[in-house]
Amino acid sequence: MPLPWEVVSALENTADTLICNATVVTVNPGFDIVKDGVVAVDNGRIKHVGGPGSFPADAAAEVIDAGGGILMPGLINTHTHLPMSLFRGLADDLPLEKWLTEHIFPAEAAHITPATVQNGTMLSCAEMLLSGTTTCCDGYFYEHAVAEAVAQAGIRAVLAQGVVDFPTPDAPDPEKNVDRAVEFVRTWKNRHSRIMPSIFCHSSYTCSADTLQRAKQAATAAGVVFQIHVAETQNESALAGIPDGVSPVKYLADLGLLDEDTLASHCVWLNAVDISILGDSGAAVAHNPESNMKLASGIAPVPALIHAGVPVGLGTDGCASNNNLDMFEAMGFAAKLHKAATGDPTVLDAETVVRMATIEGARTLGLDSLTGSIEPGKVADLIVLDTRRPHLSPMYHPESHLVYAVQGADTIHVMIDGQMLVRDGRLVDMDVGEIIARAAETGAAIAQTDSRGP
Amino acid sequence: MPLPWEVVSALENTADTLICNATVVTVNPGFDIVKDGVVAVDNGRIKHVGGPGSFPADAAAEVIDAGGGILMPGLINTHTHLPMSLFRGLADDLPLEKWLTEHIFPAEAAHITPATVQNGTMLSCAEMLLSGTTTCCDGYFYEHAVAEAVAQAGIRAVLAQGVVDFPTPDAPDPEKNVDRAVEFVRTWKNRHSRIMPSIFCHSSYTCSADTLQRAKQAATAAGVVFQIHVAETQNESALAGIPDGVSPVKYLADLGLLDEDTLASHCVWLNAVDISILGDSGAAVAHNPESNMKLASGIAPVPALIHAGVPVGLGTDGCASNNNLDMFEAMGFAAKLHKAATGDPTVLDAETVVRMATIEGARTLGLDSLTGSIEPGKVADLIVLDTRRPHLSPMYHPESHLVYAVQGADTIHVMIDGQMLVRDGRLVDMDVGEIIARAAETGAAIAQTDSRGP
Repeated sequence: MPLPWEVVSALENTADTLICNATVVTVNPGFDIVKDGVVAVDNGRIKHVGGPGSFPADAAAEVIDAGGGILMPGLINTHTHLPMSLFRGLADDLPLEKWLTEHIFPAEAAHITPATVQNGTMLSCAEMLLSGTTTCCDGYFYEHAVAEAVAQAGIRAVLAQGVVDFPTPDAPDPEKNVDRAVEFVRTWKNRHSRIMPSIFCHSSYTCSADTLQRAKQAATAAGVVFQIHVAETQNESALAGIPDGVSPVKYLADLGLLDEDTLASHCVWLNAVDISILGDSGAAVAHNPESNMKLASGIAPVPALIHAGVPVGLGTDGCASNNNLDMFEAMGFAAKLHKAATGDPTVLDAETVVRMATIEGARTLGLDSLTGSIEPGKVADLIVLDTRRPHLSPMYHPESHLVYAVQGADTIHVMIDGQMLVRDGRLVDMDVGEIIARAAETGAAIAQTDSRGP
Repeated sequence: MPLPWEVVSALENTADTLICNATVVTVNPGFDIVKDGVVAVDNGRIKHVGGPGSFPADAAAEVIDAGGGILMPGLINTHTHLPMSLFRGLADDLPLEKWLTEHIFPAEAAHITPATVQNGTMLSCAEMLLSGTTTCCDGYFYEHAVAEAVAQAGIRAVLAQGVVDFPTPDAPDPEKNVDRAVEFVRTWKNRHSRIMPSIFCHSSYTCSADTLQRAKQAATAAGVVFQIHVAETQNESALAGIPDGVSPVKYLADLGLLDEDTLASHCVWLNAVDISILGDSGAAVAHNPESNMKLASGIAPVPALIHAGVPVGLGTDGCASNNNLDMFEAMGFAAKLHKAATGDPTVLDAETVVRMATIEGARTLGLDSLTGSIEPGKVADLIVLDTRRPHLSPMYHPESHLVYAVQGADTIHVMIDGQMLVRDGRLVDMDVGEIIARAAETGAAIAQTDSRGP
């Protein structure tokens, strides 16, 4: 029997692309999985989702055989610093302070320019596309250069110029940091269909209350997402000079910073009141399990946040603290970390984690009506995974494989806005050899100046 | 200037295979990394390790260009239940008891036969080879069938017939469980150069003190490794009927079960005395971070065990509780989990974790004079990783990538005993299509009888 939307959507039966012979993990509200399913894409949008033969193959300009693999919404990485892929593995296994002050900050000061930012972003886009990510949410310096690269790569992105109250490579005068972020928003608002500008205040310990409030007000006025790192480490209140007994979340709430258009990244150190404040505020959280573990920041209370109704998306964080952008790996970490942390093997089950990496991620960015699931009318941001591999055999429940067995390299096709950006595991329009060569060149220069040496 | 061993080893300069243009991560005692290095293999053994041009290319029957990738010792998975790949993703996110009694045990009772064990083992061997594992340590039922498949696949393995005090698919009379395990050891001792038999008592709660002691004595008499699951869950003492206040480790030590030839898997719930007992005993530990997290068993005190001098190898556990055999993923989990657990970002640094997955793993199996590092005289168990990929660019410190960025699919070449088993990412002698088809067939039958349904 056809699903209700099959009847309607098959009426106008022409399409640009028909993907067939797929296990379609829709991530729609009912988490429907269509075996031997087909998805029709027309004019960049999903037109039809249904069972075998539910859409005429001869009415599609191109038919792509998914080979029995999984067809699912593209993954949404809710927290990145794209150009930092240039620092991948530069310094690991160090105390946070030493890592930042002896390696990352000096490398940024010496090597971050619009050109290297663009190269690092292209490198990250190549990695994200090849591992199934179609949307990311970013904040860094020289964000115009990030945006140019993202536009060229074809990925969907929420992008923000970072705001801190000290001189940065691209904003030597901190007095103008908010103006600069606003200028970025003005430039990119409604300029490119896949780029949504945003404002990213780094944190409560690098931005004054005044800076935070001005930035948030500007974000609200422009109708864009306001991002901020929140409670990543245990001593954040002390760092920020927040009065004793006031948590970072309470501080931000009191400043009027938490609402439906705020995305709080990390949220590791929360008490029960903080969780309740976040739940009441409508603010969303970007959870970065691998970064939090690698930097020994702590373990975010994700099951409690979800229970409190907070939209929680999944992120990788930048490559300096992960060290990759593989969202499948992030899913595996999220699912397992919280079982270990709570002692309960039933928390963050596979379906919940797949939702976090797709539709919930979209919700944290205000993009859930546009992307994050395979439903007629949404943009065609789709990925196909090859499941004819030993490590994905046999397959009982597709959502289990997505969280516990798939690796990024299982991604064979990636479509954004109906355009094929990855085909048979290869980037269609990007010269990966050149991207890697440029990264290697910058990497060699960075190694020369790093305190550990080349 | 040549390294000391270059001078000696290059004297007799003929080889079966020369691997060149590689970043050689030797994992020798000094953890030497040779850039643009070469490794010569002759008669199944490593003959030479050195810098560019240190071995004449025209003296090798075959030259393999590693393309600038990483050449390292094959990975050693110290804890597997190979045939359980057939249950991959059958049931997840459940309380342990429900998972075992409603899904795994019924599936084993209904579907585990020598034929399915052989198919499941071939599936696991294909997965392990394609993700860079060259040695594994296993225990299950119908282990003769496991051994036949392992021998055919060409992988190196320590294999044990499992011992429990209740009827199993292959040992309906538990009175004969130890005899059966001994018979397995007799059959395989000195029969196949890559298969080392072992005896595996499941645990202190499934084997009586008498069974444990008889099995250990038999293992000692035969000179083989004695394996046992130890302190995997918090209530193990209660399950085992061990007197109040006696820990599982103390119980096993008092029974005389812990010595240099014992491999204790998991060791999650240890107190300070247990760690000291293990350190004094010479027993080794197989650490399975992903399985322990997914089943919410807890977090093993690995940094403390290493500090106490306990050899700690890395394992994946069976695919019913992981759900893959990717040792690169296991490395990433181990490195990050213990940072999160201890709050110290410096514990289990990349080099330590690479050692755990190679030479320390070999040490836990008594195979460290044979494999686990790239040193002249050792067997040529080698893998090559393609690092010309976006997620591995740039590369500052190879050991960082191995732990924090590489995924199993980056493995392009695998050599065991000097024979190429994987070339350009493909299995040389195994029909992967047929292996997957057989697994799918058994999987379909398992799904039919599973309580959750197909």
